[in-house]
Amino acid sequence: MRDDSTGGDGGVPHLSPEEFRKLGHRMVDWIADYQARLESFPVRSQVAPGGVASKLPEHPPEEGLAGEAGWEGIFKDLEDIILPGLTHWQSPSFFAYFPANASGPAVLGELLSAGLGVQGMLWSTSPAATELETRVLDWLAELTGLPEDFRSTSATGGSVIQGTASEATLVAMVAARERARRHGAPADSEWVAYASTQAHSSVLKAAMLCGVAHGAEDTTHVRLIETSARYGMRPELLERTIREDLDAGRVPFFVCATVGSTSSGAADPVRAVGEVMARTPMRASGGWLHVDAAWAGAALVCPEHRDLLDGMSGVDSLAFNPHKWLLTNFDCNAFYTRDRKALLDALSVTPEYLRNAASASGAVIDYRDWQVPLGRRFRALKLWFVLRHYGAKGLRAHIREHVRLGERFESWVSEDERFEVAVPRSLSLVCFRLKPLPGEPPQATDARNRELLERVNASGKMFLSHTVLHAVEGAPARYVLRMAIGASMTQERHVRAAWELLASSVG
Amino acid sequence: MRDDSTGGDGGVPHLSPEEFRKLGHRMVDWIADYQARLESFPVRSQVAPGGVASKLPEHPPEEGLAGEAGWEGIFKDLEDIILPGLTHWQSPSFFAYFPANASGPAVLGELLSAGLGVQGMLWSTSPAATELETRVLDWLAELTGLPEDFRSTSATGGSVIQGTASEATLVAMVAARERARRHGAPADSEWVAYASTQAHSSVLKAAMLCGVAHGAEDTTHVRLIETSARYGMRPELLERTIREDLDAGRVPFFVCATVGSTSSGAADPVRAVGEVMARTPMRASGGWLHVDAAWAGAALVCPEHRDLLDGMSGVDSLAFNPHKWLLTNFDCNAFYTRDRKALLDALSVTPEYLRNAASASGAVIDYRDWQVPLGRRFRALKLWFVLRHYGAKGLRAHIREHVRLGERFESWVSEDERFEVAVPRSLSLVCFRLKPLPGEPPQATDARNRELLERVNASGKMFLSHTVLHAVEGAPARYVLRMAIGASMTQERHVRAAWELLASSVG
Repeated sequence: MRDDSTGGDGGVPHLSPEEFRKLGHRMVDWIADYQARLESFPVRSQVAPGGVASKLPEHPPEEGLAGEAGWEGIFKDLEDIILPGLTHWQSPSFFAYFPANASGPAVLGELLSAGLGVQGMLWSTSPAATELETRVLDWLAELTGLPEDFRSTSATGGSVIQGTASEATLVAMVAARERARRHGAPADSEWVAYASTQAHSSVLKAAMLCGVAHGAEDTTHVRLIETSARYGMRPELLERTIREDLDAGRVPFFVCATVGSTSSGAADPVRAVGEVMARTPMRASGGWLHVDAAWAGAALVCPEHRDLLDGMSGVDSLAFNPHKWLLTNFDCNAFYTRDRKALLDALSVTPEYLRNAASASGAVIDYRDWQVPLGRRFRALKLWFVLRHYGAKGLRAHIREHVRLGERFESWVSEDERFEVAVPRSLSLVCFRLKPLPGEPPQATDARNRELLERVNASGKMFLSHTVLHAVEGAPARYVLRMAIGASMTQERHVRAAWELLASSVG
Repeated sequence: MRDDSTGGDGGVPHLSPEEFRKLGHRMVDWIADYQARLESFPVRSQVAPGGVASKLPEHPPEEGLAGEAGWEGIFKDLEDIILPGLTHWQSPSFFAYFPANASGPAVLGELLSAGLGVQGMLWSTSPAATELETRVLDWLAELTGLPEDFRSTSATGGSVIQGTASEATLVAMVAARERARRHGAPADSEWVAYASTQAHSSVLKAAMLCGVAHGAEDTTHVRLIETSARYGMRPELLERTIREDLDAGRVPFFVCATVGSTSSGAADPVRAVGEVMARTPMRASGGWLHVDAAWAGAALVCPEHRDLLDGMSGVDSLAFNPHKWLLTNFDCNAFYTRDRKALLDALSVTPEYLRNAASASGAVIDYRDWQVPLGRRFRALKLWFVLRHYGAKGLRAHIREHVRLGERFESWVSEDERFEVAVPRSLSLVCFRLKPLPGEPPQATDARNRELLERVNASGKMFLSHTVLHAVEGAPARYVLRMAIGASMTQERHVRAAWELLASSVG
């Protein structure tokens, strides 16, 4: 009991600080041991649907646990029920989707955030949560070479930690609509948003959420523009589509350019996209260009990858996820804009119970006006710990090592005549497949690749995922495997083992 | 270094499991010590705007820390920079807003979630994350007495952990619009959402996000219905407004009923609201009733508070925040619906790279289709730990103790002739104020209350917030103080000290 000296806890079995200390040590030990034995687990969970639920009691417990000792059962269940039901995203042999690469410093930051349990919705509800966030995001802007006017120190820009890239896209889209409205577009306009066929599904989802798209099949209000053979948006098609929409009385208001697409790591030509917007009436009527660099943005810490930033002068907002490839555990999306006023215009609602002198003074940032939810965790702590622990040098070394491993993997694929690299490697992402056999129909090639994927994933020794690359410029659609290198602990030996397993698993 | 035996880490200074273990213990110790000394801090931060930022380096570090020893500086900065910049939400003398009451078991769950670092966006990306979430939410439905058809075991219902009540309201509103569309309303209808004047600001914000409201001042598409003297929505006014909107060609599609309003803890008459919807054409055309019980929902663990559930048969979704008053650290909103299909219709988008056999089989839940973001943390762990550690008995004792403390506080206010209880106590929330002096104009009474609030908050000994209760039924608007009892460690002695400070601080 927390306070048994006074007996004032109403009989609620809280952990005392000393009990929390002991259990906390034990949980940290469990996690450290988990880290040490990560390579011993099948990477992809092997349970069948219902396999976890069947081991859980059907009804909640009436009685609580008797203090610290009662936790034996919980630790046992972690081993017996939870672990077999996990796909181990932190495994060094996890190459699926994009990474969600956590790190020790980030985990400590998340722990501290939970332990402090403060709310950062307003500056006044915990000034340190706001001011640390602003500062570490300015640090990150400096580390990634973002333009000055995306920083909090600029006249009109600023940044915020969003939960995810999906939320970042939604917030940008809503700010864009509000800005277009203030440029004179009627509120009930037929709004049109643009992205490439390779854009993340969250662009369509954002349009559905904010009412621009009328359902997932609405191709009138979300225009997915065809790409070049390298899967970057074709700006001349964007321009033609914008003009057609304008002629039809619709209101083009938002373009999402992708830098580092989920399928193949492709980049849209951001500069050309911005020029299209400037050339058409779209820009002058408030049109917004958002850059979704969810995964690839982390590579900007290396000057050699700053070509990804070409054309930033035409960009209104950019977001990337330190929780993907910058050693910060989910959730942590870094959202930058040069028009913070547009966000506030779209998202500010101030009821009486949240009014306070600091906010009224205008001297502080209230981040709840920059995001979908009201409440917010103190997520800046984990980013602060990561930036301090690794330093700029450590972060650059981290990205460079993974890109080097991607190059190695790409070279092994290229040297094996049964395989081919499907599109040029993007940073540490390699899309590849078994080549078509002579005379083999495309569906049969796809099927052999699908079987290979399932075979290696079922082995438990590695886990990778797939995509279908769209038919483009005469080439048919292709089912390809994605080797996304990015787990924090992945070393060359893991990538080599993955390649050897793939090469030896061809049917 | 993680793996210095092989030297394969590319020079990236990761923490080894052993280094993580040592630092983790130290962080746990820091948090346990923080818990033990919580009462020694000023509850509300006393820093001025810029006071935290001024102590932080302007530029990010080029060099990282030399392993574990390098963290001395971080722990020092926690004391010198972060702590003074915090408002201590976990302080037993924190009575502001609504509580965000964490607990030891929840913090351990958040730590574990970060340490595992798995993504629960799809069943297949970590089956345990999905199946544990489904089960603990069914447990919670049982504990709170929610109808059977809100559980995953029902034919059409189900539940999910959202981040916040704001997101829950947004998701419900978007599902509602999609359902109304499928009932025949044109996609470009003039949609109208309804709530009381006491509804949380997130209802308006959700309407702005999803495009129903055209800006924060739009009273045509978000109708805030006047209330009775107890601040519950007046159903006859709701009905009249719905009929006026229908007559004007608008489409009423969504009502948010509040149970436990932020200002005063008021409850809308849910049964009567549902009956209005059934009586008008609104229900038959797909109209949706969402109950926002963000704070008060936790009290449903006690059978004596189940009157809050009256009228649930007309309700489509209900959400409350275990992160407010059920000992689970932010973020954790429990969202229940009896029409899960409506959510999926509104939110499902499935790109190729997320397709998988388990999802295609229909045998599993993919929670990304139930929420705004794609990615999600393994938040069920913390709720599981809380439910197991406290058990149903412990949770009931927790709520009952806080309600008892609210009753105590209310009685002290009532007995002091200088004060008055402004509206009847709601659970553990007491709205009160200094009474008007004879002949005192309302603004002067408000000013004396404002001064009292600022005086006690500036003392650092407690922190409470205020609201303005709307003018209603002839009574003028009133500035009142809100005593929201709900911090995990609050005991009678803290509530008594708060009252004594208030009583002795009257100017």
